[in-house]
Amino acid sequence: MGKWVYEFAEGDASMKALLGGKGANLAEMARLGMPVPPGFVITTQCCLDYFRDGRRLGEPLRREVLEALARLETTMGRKIGDHREPLLVSVRSGAAVSMPGMMDTILNLGLNQLTAQGLAESTGDARFAYDCYRRFIAMFSEVVLGLPAGPFAAILEQRKAASGAASDGELTAPVLRDIADAYLGLVKGRGGRDFPQDPVEQLLMAVEAVFRSWYNDRAVIYRRVHRIPDDLGTAVTVQAMVFGNRGRHSGTGVLFTRHPSTGSPEVLGEYLGNAQGEDVVAGTRTPHPVARLGDELPQVYLQLMESARRLETHYRDAQDIEFTIERGQLFFLQTRSASRTARAAVKIAIDLAEEGIITRAEAIGRVEPEHIEGLLHRGLILEDSSRVIARGLPASPGAATGRVVFQADEAERRGEAGERVILVRPETAPDDMHGIVQAQGILTSRGGMTCHAAIVARGMGKPAVVGCEALTIDLAAGRAWTEDVSISQGELITIDGASGQVILGEVALVEPRLDREFGELLAWCDQVRRLGVRANADTPQDAARSREFGAEGIGLCRTEHMFMTPEGLPLMQEMILAEGEDERRQALERLLPMQREDFKGILRAMAGYPVTIRLLDPPLHEFLPDVAGLTAELEAMVSRGGDPAGIGRQRDLLRKARGLAEVNPMLGFRGCRLGVVYPEIYAMQARAIFEATAELVKEGVSGIRPEVMIPLVGLARELAILEELVRRVAREVMASSGVEFPVVVGTMIEVPRGALTAGELAQHAEFFSFGTNDLTQLTYGFSRDDAEAKFLHHYLRHKVLPDNPFAVLDEAGVGQLVKIAVELGRKARPGLKLGICGEHGGEPRSIGFFHRAGLDYVSCSPYRVPVARLAAARAQLDEQGGKSRERRGRRPARTTGRPVN
Amino acid sequence: MGKWVYEFAEGDASMKALLGGKGANLAEMARLGMPVPPGFVITTQCCLDYFRDGRRLGEPLRREVLEALARLETTMGRKIGDHREPLLVSVRSGAAVSMPGMMDTILNLGLNQLTAQGLAESTGDARFAYDCYRRFIAMFSEVVLGLPAGPFAAILEQRKAASGAASDGELTAPVLRDIADAYLGLVKGRGGRDFPQDPVEQLLMAVEAVFRSWYNDRAVIYRRVHRIPDDLGTAVTVQAMVFGNRGRHSGTGVLFTRHPSTGSPEVLGEYLGNAQGEDVVAGTRTPHPVARLGDELPQVYLQLMESARRLETHYRDAQDIEFTIERGQLFFLQTRSASRTARAAVKIAIDLAEEGIITRAEAIGRVEPEHIEGLLHRGLILEDSSRVIARGLPASPGAATGRVVFQADEAERRGEAGERVILVRPETAPDDMHGIVQAQGILTSRGGMTCHAAIVARGMGKPAVVGCEALTIDLAAGRAWTEDVSISQGELITIDGASGQVILGEVALVEPRLDREFGELLAWCDQVRRLGVRANADTPQDAARSREFGAEGIGLCRTEHMFMTPEGLPLMQEMILAEGEDERRQALERLLPMQREDFKGILRAMAGYPVTIRLLDPPLHEFLPDVAGLTAELEAMVSRGGDPAGIGRQRDLLRKARGLAEVNPMLGFRGCRLGVVYPEIYAMQARAIFEATAELVKEGVSGIRPEVMIPLVGLARELAILEELVRRVAREVMASSGVEFPVVVGTMIEVPRGALTAGELAQHAEFFSFGTNDLTQLTYGFSRDDAEAKFLHHYLRHKVLPDNPFAVLDEAGVGQLVKIAVELGRKARPGLKLGICGEHGGEPRSIGFFHRAGLDYVSCSPYRVPVARLAAARAQLDEQGGKSRERRGRRPARTTGRPVN
Repeated sequence: MGKWVYEFAEGDASMKALLGGKGANLAEMARLGMPVPPGFVITTQCCLDYFRDGRRLGEPLRREVLEALARLETTMGRKIGDHREPLLVSVRSGAAVSMPGMMDTILNLGLNQLTAQGLAESTGDARFAYDCYRRFIAMFSEVVLGLPAGPFAAILEQRKAASGAASDGELTAPVLRDIADAYLGLVKGRGGRDFPQDPVEQLLMAVEAVFRSWYNDRAVIYRRVHRIPDDLGTAVTVQAMVFGNRGRHSGTGVLFTRHPSTGSPEVLGEYLGNAQGEDVVAGTRTPHPVARLGDELPQVYLQLMESARRLETHYRDAQDIEFTIERGQLFFLQTRSASRTARAAVKIAIDLAEEGIITRAEAIGRVEPEHIEGLLHRGLILEDSSRVIARGLPASPGAATGRVVFQADEAERRGEAGERVILVRPETAPDDMHGIVQAQGILTSRGGMTCHAAIVARGMGKPAVVGCEALTIDLAAGRAWTEDVSISQGELITIDGASGQVILGEVALVEPRLDREFGELLAWCDQVRRLGVRANADTPQDAARSREFGAEGIGLCRTEHMFMTPEGLPLMQEMILAEGEDERRQALERLLPMQREDFKGILRAMAGYPVTIRLLDPPLHEFLPDVAGLTAELEAMVSRGGDPAGIGRQRDLLRKARGLAEVNPMLGFRGCRLGVVYPEIYAMQARAIFEATAELVKEGVSGIRPEVMIPLVGLARELAILEELVRRVAREVMASSGVEFPVVVGTMIEVPRGALTAGELAQHAEFFSFGTNDLTQLTYGFSRDDAEAKFLHHYLRHKVLPDNPFAVLDEAGVGQLVKIAVELGRKARPGLKLGICGEHGGEPRSIGFFHRAGLDYVSCSPYRVPVARLAAARAQLDEQGGKSRERRGRRPARTTGRPVN
Repeated sequence: MGKWVYEFAEGDASMKALLGGKGANLAEMARLGMPVPPGFVITTQCCLDYFRDGRRLGEPLRREVLEALARLETTMGRKIGDHREPLLVSVRSGAAVSMPGMMDTILNLGLNQLTAQGLAESTGDARFAYDCYRRFIAMFSEVVLGLPAGPFAAILEQRKAASGAASDGELTAPVLRDIADAYLGLVKGRGGRDFPQDPVEQLLMAVEAVFRSWYNDRAVIYRRVHRIPDDLGTAVTVQAMVFGNRGRHSGTGVLFTRHPSTGSPEVLGEYLGNAQGEDVVAGTRTPHPVARLGDELPQVYLQLMESARRLETHYRDAQDIEFTIERGQLFFLQTRSASRTARAAVKIAIDLAEEGIITRAEAIGRVEPEHIEGLLHRGLILEDSSRVIARGLPASPGAATGRVVFQADEAERRGEAGERVILVRPETAPDDMHGIVQAQGILTSRGGMTCHAAIVARGMGKPAVVGCEALTIDLAAGRAWTEDVSISQGELITIDGASGQVILGEVALVEPRLDREFGELLAWCDQVRRLGVRANADTPQDAARSREFGAEGIGLCRTEHMFMTPEGLPLMQEMILAEGEDERRQALERLLPMQREDFKGILRAMAGYPVTIRLLDPPLHEFLPDVAGLTAELEAMVSRGGDPAGIGRQRDLLRKARGLAEVNPMLGFRGCRLGVVYPEIYAMQARAIFEATAELVKEGVSGIRPEVMIPLVGLARELAILEELVRRVAREVMASSGVEFPVVVGTMIEVPRGALTAGELAQHAEFFSFGTNDLTQLTYGFSRDDAEAKFLHHYLRHKVLPDNPFAVLDEAGVGQLVKIAVELGRKARPGLKLGICGEHGGEPRSIGFFHRAGLDYVSCSPYRVPVARLAAARAQLDEQGGKSRERRGRRPARTTGRPVN
């Protein structure tokens, strides 16, 4: 089975899969000669073996661990369990992919009644020794023995109160010793066994506990949210303890080499004196800025800053570094690529590239497309600053509005039911993950920029305000208050994670702009990508906005919203109620000028670029009130003896609405089926498009490029009939206007049969646009309206489905149909243009698929255009990387260097 | 362009495509030395050229026709237009495929003022000459000049009345001449031109008219109904006239060499003395049995019988022969394979094979699967004979019930709206086709076994009673009556086309049995076919019946009807209303014994054969009353102050029904999705199946072979979860019962994604069964519930779709998915069993596809099992034929010799 345990000296940063991110980076830092407490790593493979073997540590592994421990003892010159000068170790989890706070850690391992006394004597600091001891007992009991944390905290609080100490730091050695004894009694009473006194037994139990924590609830949820596979396993790092809690010249902290919110090239760090690492991460004490170290321990500060810079340059990326200072001596406990906001990711990538540390291609690879959409949303327009009730740390940017909820369970329940909630907590813990996932944003009264809530929220691109100390929270009462106001559960608030503001009620949002760095990065993307990017836009305003975001045309202009306006709707209803073609034509005649003006606006805004206009798609009953409402109204009109003409019209409406009602509207009388049965509707729309074109040309606007798209085609004959209709109208408009213009007709591929018979359709289409929303509905047989509420949620939660197929394109099923259609279509018509205008057109992984499938462009909502530009560039770089990897003989390294931890 | 005109001597029976069926068979009979009036044929290619060239006869064609005419004149020793002894000709249509009465015919061509007189003088029979002349003017005016027939008929009636003649036969020469003159005046008045006097002009105009009739409405409808392509075109046969209307020793008739209703080997013929062919076919005079000729003209009768036998042996099939006797001399005007009822087709095929005239394979090829389903339906159980109000000729067997309708338009309108109607007419004409298509059956008061209504109805397998002379019909009043009763439009009647009975109201139907010949034919089929045939059956009764019809197992046993019984439904509703799994389990516990008993019954009835049981498929809301009804009931209960517990339960029902309501139920929470979310439901069903199995085994019943089928699977994970569930339950039942039984689990392929990922599904399935109903809905995006009424009808009528894809499997789209699934499935699991249980499983063309796609079996409704056995055998013979054709170098002949005319 090979080697299970690696000493730091045997590893390096490339071995993350085996040693976990933490272990590999500790080895790398040790290799670089940086001060790292000695230790060794038990591999992720051992974790997988542990689960495979029915949760049992095998004998060979135990032996290797004990051998590594013996070497560590030699290195440290101290032995574990030694009564006079005992070796203490930390036991930490660390997977290949960073899952901050999700799995377990045990510090101060090796203490028992005798070694605690030895530690007190050898350090001459009894207070320190028993502080460590009581921490260890509580932590081990909770993590390894599975006892609840509450009773331990209660004992601590009770003793603190009894001794009159204001904080943990004021507890004296005897009190701490007394607490440790009380803890031991608690363990015996609750757990039914003595607290394990043998340090080796402690160690092996701790290793098992860390392995087990791979499958604890919060880790499982975290992996689901971040799409991390279950079969990676976690490594375990065993390391000699260094102590941040050894008095005034000791402490612990974390540090970002660049600002994780803005990306600006300034170190952001936090530091707690006389504390162990858990105190910082848990957010239980609010730490000081790291700069204060410059005053307190200037040499250490200087060394820290130099090392930080060195690590950043070495890793070629912004780092998130954990350090501990023991009596004036600096140790590094972790370094990893810093998690960051989308804005920071862009800024850091651009800066690193401009500093020459990474290439432009690598810069593109450093920014996750999923995250940058947030950059284009949710700025606040706050006109009334009196509504700002408090201000906290701007931990994760973006604004969010929702109803206040104080418990994660409640947040989950309401969120799943579709309610928008803000989770408000004194602090968050890994156990709150399920609630955080469902919340729109997070607000905490404690913690700093690096507390749990801040890290998790940034990772998920969710707005967060933390350390909002003006807020007092009474969880039991379900209430929070500032000096001025009180907030109850269910009240509406808004948080702004960019400014730290907390605002009562809802607030208007401002339209975003691309900033310089973002614009720069996208310009680099445009140089790289092969895939075109268009926008789905139905109005001149949307068209203009999508141009600003870099759209190269409109891939989907829906025509139906024009019929939903106050002027359009009555005419549309008249058209639907018409008895016979003549009456219908009259109503259409009056709709024509409205459509023409709409099209003129959009075509003008997109001059120079193609505009794909989809003819009427939804079923006609969508333009009528629903049957139940109409029935009730009619009854009311009749019972109050209303105007007979009005009653007559109402009756007509009701009759027609009943006639148009469908059992399965999604599969009903809509799309090109309307066009085939009522050709005059499509003829009117085609006329409006071409008349708009002719008028613009006459007005001297150049580059007017409409493309007419027929929806829901499943049969070549449907398309043949409607293509001919559109071309006939175009000829008529050319003849009457005297203007010549090119006529482009294409079809949506959104019905499986359309994809399967794409070769025939291509005879009548100059382009295909994949409507992956409907195509997904039909390929799965899932009604989007029904599935989400009824069973899709269950499917996702229980991994029957890995992803929501309406969000991420299903390559195995829907993607097969796309590939079939691409192949058949191109074979039948080599110059066929291929695009996609479903919501997947703005989803990065799906864009990767569309790139590989050979499409010409994607089209998405205006705000997702930058996402798509970035994702398209990354798809191209991935392909080149794949090719150059193949050339180099399939070396598995990534050329685009995306951060994986 | 080659040769356009063929004389009879230049053709033979193999040239149907070019000469039309009529022309080719006339040539063949001439070749055989039988008495055929000389003539020539203008090819179908000329017809196609005519339409291609903008409906123009080209000069070369005109020249060839005139040359052929000249040769005919030489042969006959008479010249067309000759004043003394003019040559007259008939001009008849004739396509490669028989379309009886659909296109036009002109007789007596060549007459004008002078030649009529010449004919009178040369024959010495002025009455005959002017009878021909007035017939010719009327026919030519209607067919060629496009004038309405009514005014001609009115003149005839008026003159008849004025001269006191009881029938056409009593009209004297002067009166007929006067009628002809009146006709000429009518043509001049109505048509604005003189009736053409030049016989050559008459001929060329007639040829054009016959060509044009290829696209008349009734021909177009007929082709749509019979799926005959438009691009065949019709040939035109020009033939010297022989006259059945030359007095007592003249006449005309038709003859079937075997009985077209029963198939019994006896000649069935009809004969009208002193008449032309149109009189027989139109049903305007009721003819005599042909046997009467034996008394009147014994020599001619003998010659006719001998020739009939000779033609049947020569053509190796029962013939439908037209003949004319002119003054004691017999002429044959047509022979073709006789149209026949399904029963007759079976009987004739078996008899011909047993007589050694054709092979067994040919016999199988002679029976159309589409038609034989009628053999298994619709016998009457008439307990009260007083309801028989009249009796006519049993023209086309089968019983039909429907509302009386007197007009074809009305029949079409009502039929399309889904109403069952019986079209009641004095006689039918080709113009009534659209109404006949939509009617359940046809009843006429006039006509014989070979009248239009009889021929058309037999061809379509529709029940018909004709010549029901006891019935008087007043079309204007919309009423019919016998001596005793009066029937108004809309009244319900039943006709029995096997007995000729007409019955007031609805009548119970008797279960059919296979008769000897049919059983024999199917036994031959079973020896030939590769494809297995199972039945879709949900009850022990259906299972037993399908065994009688030869089913080799059940391919689809739906389990939901068991929940719809008066005992089952309340429990099912309880299960649905249950709050939480425990309550649900309790309700399921009580459903279990009911399901178990059901399964025992079915499995016992099918002992020795596999029974594929599909677990619950429909959405749960189908088991609850609809929301509108529940709301109304609840309001009523509340307003009358009902029992609070009852109101509570009603409220629960309503709330649940609202919660379960779906926008698109077809795409909703049903099938395996229910099983994944509520596994306890499927677990109960699996338990019922396996406990039934174990109990039957204990009772000593052998050959119990349940197969568990999971519906609506689109994801391998769904199937993996449910397969494991079913197997777990099976193990539990084996353990508790002590009985071992094989466990077979498979899936339906009815979601496109299931087909596209069939390789993955095959990992968890021992069989696939294609659910082509849903697969068609999803592949097209057609809701069956909505499409038919909303747009499918339009699509079929306008040939946007060639066939209803819910009736005939769509090979290009749905068939692609079937092929993909077959390939992927078999590749992943070589022994995978493949079947189909959609309605297409009983449709002959679709069965041909399933055979070619390599499926193992089809499953269909019990009554279609014989259809499927026959279609499967024909598919196999077609394949062998195709192969042997390939071996022989792609000769295009059919080895199975299906009659094409």
